[in-house]
Amino acid sequence: MSDEFDVIVIGAGPAGENVAQRAVRGGLSAAVVEERLAGGECSYWACIPSKALLRPVELAADVSRVPGLEVGPIDTRAVLARRDEAVSRYDDAGQVGWIESVPATFVRGRGRLDGPRRVVVDTPDGGERVLTARHAVVLATGSVASVPPVPGLREAEPWTSHEVTAASSVPDRLAVIGGGVVGCEMAQAMHGLGARQTTMLVRGGGLLERMEPFAGELLAESFAAAGIDVRPHTSAERVERPEPGGKVTVHLPEGPPIEADEVLVATGRRPATKGLGLESVGLPADRPVEVDDSLRATGVDGGWLYAVGDVNGRNLLTHMGKYQARACGDVIAARARGEADDLPGMRAVADGFGPPQVVFTDPQICSVGRTESAAREAGFRVRAVEYDLADVSGAYLLGDGYRGRAKAVVDEDRKVLLGVTFAGPGTAELLHSATVAVTGEVPLERLWHAVPSFPTVSEVWLRLLEAYGL
Amino acid sequence: MSDEFDVIVIGAGPAGENVAQRAVRGGLSAAVVEERLAGGECSYWACIPSKALLRPVELAADVSRVPGLEVGPIDTRAVLARRDEAVSRYDDAGQVGWIESVPATFVRGRGRLDGPRRVVVDTPDGGERVLTARHAVVLATGSVASVPPVPGLREAEPWTSHEVTAASSVPDRLAVIGGGVVGCEMAQAMHGLGARQTTMLVRGGGLLERMEPFAGELLAESFAAAGIDVRPHTSAERVERPEPGGKVTVHLPEGPPIEADEVLVATGRRPATKGLGLESVGLPADRPVEVDDSLRATGVDGGWLYAVGDVNGRNLLTHMGKYQARACGDVIAARARGEADDLPGMRAVADGFGPPQVVFTDPQICSVGRTESAAREAGFRVRAVEYDLADVSGAYLLGDGYRGRAKAVVDEDRKVLLGVTFAGPGTAELLHSATVAVTGEVPLERLWHAVPSFPTVSEVWLRLLEAYGL
Repeated sequence: MSDEFDVIVIGAGPAGENVAQRAVRGGLSAAVVEERLAGGECSYWACIPSKALLRPVELAADVSRVPGLEVGPIDTRAVLARRDEAVSRYDDAGQVGWIESVPATFVRGRGRLDGPRRVVVDTPDGGERVLTARHAVVLATGSVASVPPVPGLREAEPWTSHEVTAASSVPDRLAVIGGGVVGCEMAQAMHGLGARQTTMLVRGGGLLERMEPFAGELLAESFAAAGIDVRPHTSAERVERPEPGGKVTVHLPEGPPIEADEVLVATGRRPATKGLGLESVGLPADRPVEVDDSLRATGVDGGWLYAVGDVNGRNLLTHMGKYQARACGDVIAARARGEADDLPGMRAVADGFGPPQVVFTDPQICSVGRTESAAREAGFRVRAVEYDLADVSGAYLLGDGYRGRAKAVVDEDRKVLLGVTFAGPGTAELLHSATVAVTGEVPLERLWHAVPSFPTVSEVWLRLLEAYGL
Repeated sequence: MSDEFDVIVIGAGPAGENVAQRAVRGGLSAAVVEERLAGGECSYWACIPSKALLRPVELAADVSRVPGLEVGPIDTRAVLARRDEAVSRYDDAGQVGWIESVPATFVRGRGRLDGPRRVVVDTPDGGERVLTARHAVVLATGSVASVPPVPGLREAEPWTSHEVTAASSVPDRLAVIGGGVVGCEMAQAMHGLGARQTTMLVRGGGLLERMEPFAGELLAESFAAAGIDVRPHTSAERVERPEPGGKVTVHLPEGPPIEADEVLVATGRRPATKGLGLESVGLPADRPVEVDDSLRATGVDGGWLYAVGDVNGRNLLTHMGKYQARACGDVIAARARGEADDLPGMRAVADGFGPPQVVFTDPQICSVGRTESAAREAGFRVRAVEYDLADVSGAYLLGDGYRGRAKAVVDEDRKVLLGVTFAGPGTAELLHSATVAVTGEVPLERLWHAVPSFPTVSEVWLRLLEAYGL
């Protein structure tokens, strides 16, 4: 097997896979190096298993709002079995097969840069293999969960997103450190699947603090109703776990400590750059790999290094990584052929709009673009409008006691949307309408003619535009 | 109370109500005349009750696809009670209050034209009241269900959408004549709520024949699995119901007759122009009232007559009637003030794109714009792409055995979308993304940057664009 390829991709998560596919489509040869499972975090320890765990919890909540229908208790064993199926039982044969069908060469092992266009792979048999790239090396190693420096925490071997999504049973008592997306989704999943006591320690004043404030407020209300104990302005001071796998005690600055059977750390992620050999090409070893809109690393002679997905720190979301990967694969192929490398699809411009994101909780929390405060900070002349989703007929028809809210942030100079947030059941699929409107920069006066179908939740679009004055 | 108003609206359904609101917002006085209930068909005998009946049926189907969750049998009595609540127990006090809060004058009675700008109202007390309009009369009388001339059918007092949505119990055996939206939704609702034998007689070859063929095919598969007996190419030849309210026999051209406890006629609707006095202003009495894009009736001297909603025959959908109403109210006010009457919001241009529509069945069937065949017939140079929704991760995560399909119809000359169809669970709210794309004429190369959030059903957008070659 040749050890020279047009493109070498380090990391076979969704982003890495997509770079290879697009580059090969563009006429290049590609190798993809992966230390763990082809398919990446998303397929085994993030998006896919978390949604498999959340789906029955969400549906049970939906049913609870509809008179005439009742669900029995959730059969957690069946849910975990479906999660196992969704993650292909942690076997990546299907993904490796997909990569080979591209066709690209799959190389199992830990890859690292070793100077320009050179990748050294530590193979599972303890050997080393050297690959060289004719045109480009693409870093797609993703990110790893951060564990904050709380005394005793690391020693307590806490769960991260990795372990909680792969749980083989539900802990009776769960302590969650962090109030972001992972913390919220997994608190709800574990609680809905049988955790008797779920406590969230949130450093800031509320949940999901990067989003519009009402989103976290509605979610906190829902959590309170479900019996999830959210503690704002609370940080762990010290953690004790005398027996590995045994009871955990989380000490707080004030009040009694929290006793739990597991502790989940969900305080963010950092780019997986450790051991990646960045210093061999003159880049700092412990920072996201900075790239331009064509995903090419800045500050590397010859412009042969690219980075897509979490490792570049632009937007830590699977779909944004894949989006970058498509642009990256296309642009590498164009440059290799000496063709125009600035076609519209070859720049990840959407990274700058603010990514779409769905939090699969009850209520669902969905946003795209900028929040009002982020838009103001960025210097836009802004006007924002809000609407209570419960006043939309299509929402009322989804169930009794529907709670939700929507907000649109308007650029007053251009009369286009800068951001939209929906919080409420039934909004996960509605988000893409906002993504099209924001990314397409569709003028408000044109959006007015995009009539929402009655009676759906999407009628809120009409209400938002009316609230704006159309 | 004065009997002269700037605007007189005949019909207080959603379209009529919206005309009044927009005209009053524009500084005019308005009266709204209604013979039956303010709020119209939609609120009491169409969209609202039908969705209230369908919601638990849809949810039960969703649950059946998710391991670990089980629903008990649907409590039909509770569902009918929620339907009664959703229709405000057929009491329009709330709606009348809303009209008066606009503020507009509500006039109870049957209104008809009696020459230019003159409306005669037959009041409930047997009297007559004459109203005159300074600027405009707006017809918003909606439509009524058509009953085909099948011998014995009318005498059998069949159910229409009106009666089936208001049912106080579910018939044991239901025969449905028609395979369009109302027939499909109500067959599924009644079957899901306990009808033991549901038979659909469909004149054409399949269900929902105005939509892309796969939509009706997927629905027919779902109906077959649920035990709904769909008979394509079958028309009723003769109907017998010896006892009012008793057993109905539907005779077919071939084979044994169908015995049923109720028969539902769902073969389309015609504009409610009967007795409307159209001939008093020189218009034909038995046809939709033809209007221009400002909703002004054509062929009426002085241009004071308008028509919105079903009665103009443009698009028989509540949301399109309301859309027309907003344009109409605005344009009437502008013309009354002698101001510009051609602002972007004053023309119902979206009527021409092809309206968005959601069929709330399992699977949901959603479309906007033109089908491939309609686009070709209209002379567009077209390319269409399809994708199997079951291959989208976000769909798989909704439940096992997910079945669905999506199609996009591209205008090859302008590289914009002419139409989009989604068929599958979880697509009702997704439709608005297509409505924004089609109505906003967002170029495909821009849609490429509208990244669907992972893992949602909306990822099908990426797949469709990839299938197109982006």
